Amino acid sequence: MTLENISINKSFSGWHKQYSHHSDSLNCPMRFAIFLPPQASNDQRVPVLYWLSGLTCSDENFMQKAGAQRLAAELGIAIVAPDTSPRGDKVPDDDGYDLGQGAGFYVNATQAPWHRHYRMYDYLVEELPALIEATFPVSDRRAIAGHSMGGHGALMIGLRNPGRYRSMSAFSPISNPSVCPWGQKAFSAYLGSDTAAWRQYDTSLLMRDAPEGPPALVDQGASDPYLAEQLQPQALQAAAQASGYPLQLNLREGYDHSYYFIASFIDQHLRFHATHLQD
Amino acid sequence: MTLENISINKSFSGWHKQYSHHSDSLNCPMRFAIFLPPQASNDQRVPVLYWLSGLTCSDENFMQKAGAQRLAAELGIAIVAPDTSPRGDKVPDDDGYDLGQGAGFYVNATQAPWHRHYRMYDYLVEELPALIEATFPVSDRRAIAGHSMGGHGALMIGLRNPGRYRSMSAFSPISNPSVCPWGQKAFSAYLGSDTAAWRQYDTSLLMRDAPEGPPALVDQGASDPYLAEQLQPQALQAAAQASGYPLQLNLREGYDHSYYFIASFIDQHLRFHATHLQD
Repeated sequence: MTLENISINKSFSGWHKQYSHHSDSLNCPMRFAIFLPPQASNDQRVPVLYWLSGLTCSDENFMQKAGAQRLAAELGIAIVAPDTSPRGDKVPDDDGYDLGQGAGFYVNATQAPWHRHYRMYDYLVEELPALIEATFPVSDRRAIAGHSMGGHGALMIGLRNPGRYRSMSAFSPISNPSVCPWGQKAFSAYLGSDTAAWRQYDTSLLMRDAPEGPPALVDQGASDPYLAEQLQPQALQAAAQASGYPLQLNLREGYDHSYYFIASFIDQHLRFHATHLQD
Repeated sequence: MTLENISINKSFSGWHKQYSHHSDSLNCPMRFAIFLPPQASNDQRVPVLYWLSGLTCSDENFMQKAGAQRLAAELGIAIVAPDTSPRGDKVPDDDGYDLGQGAGFYVNATQAPWHRHYRMYDYLVEELPALIEATFPVSDRRAIAGHSMGGHGALMIGLRNPGRYRSMSAFSPISNPSVCPWGQKAFSAYLGSDTAAWRQYDTSLLMRDAPEGPPALVDQGASDPYLAEQLQPQALQAAAQASGYPLQLNLREGYDHSYYFIASFIDQHLRFHATHLQD
């Protein structure tokens, strides 16, 4: 596997770096960003938090806007931010911001024309962590988090791979994609019209059947314009109550869907993950 | 004066807001952003830090990327981020990123075609603070800071108006614009070829003649690609030594010109200003 370095910036005595590499899962070049805290060295491998971003985002939004590096540097946690879909001229796309490039929804597509490239689930669960752990001074202690579409991705991947992640968290996740417009549009395109194939990617349905798994922290802005129609955190809460899942869901008065919201509470998420990432 | 609200986001229990208004100084509509910490109320007016951004920036870069709101909310400091030039179809522009819109250099232009709009000095020293203090629950305790072109602007304005600002700081300022390519290009266009007119806008020349004024903090990345040719902090250091000016200049090993650098040290700048902004 060949990594090409794109950029490097010193940040809080650690390093922010962007790389591109060929992805076998996605059949195209992919870009990711990594923040390595100052503690990371060949003598001290540090745990990793994977951050999955929302619709239209790339590897850059979280690294530039969340303000996570300050506390991650203090806690000694690396952060990896992948892109949100396969990219490039040869990769199928759609005119909508909520389908195609920038909108991979973290699934393995089974339908044409998407199935040759849109395999973000495999990329995130297998290929990318293997690459990260073979390349950088990080351990196999992993956590996963995300925002909106990436909140759905983080919780869904955490629920399906409980042994791989110590903890998981989300801001404003698409909690029940099978029954909201964003999820229905994406799942219909990527997975087809048989909704039985959608269940494995629906966080609320998975949590209802998964009494054990990584502890989960979710923050949701009460003034989020997508709250009622798209995000539906009450479905997640009901699922956790039904199965006894360890979910802490906070509704935050006055906060919206933006990175101003994420930045306001990212420290609490980092401290939550740090507790579970300790040896 | 009529303010039009453009956006509002809750942030660290305070509020980030964008407004547009007609500027008499600049003869066009202008946009600015303000962060109001949770302490701000009609019963408790809070001090204000004015942040001047660098080339190509708008009111958004600092607010989205610096991570300043966390500590500003704790310290009870409002932050105002203006745009970096007049804007609009009727405002003269240049093909270069370093002249015209996005590159006002915080001067009052005297030369055609710039002189009708490019009066950022007057806008920042008089018009904008008057508007801010008449509209929001802030006091007349002011500090000023900025980055690159905005670092030049902050130090230059602070030096020329010592009674108006309690403290001033800069990241990677254009320290001696009269003798660097960015400064020479902008000053030639805005102020004409007579370099006598440039002196009033050159921080190093002003500091050499100003033994008293707001205490100054400057951080400069040692790996900044613009360090030697454009920024020249040694000129500022020499000027402070010559006049005994209270300047603390830190060279930061490994850091570059980006917001990753600013974010890494913004807390130290906020604490510096907080010390001087106390009653």
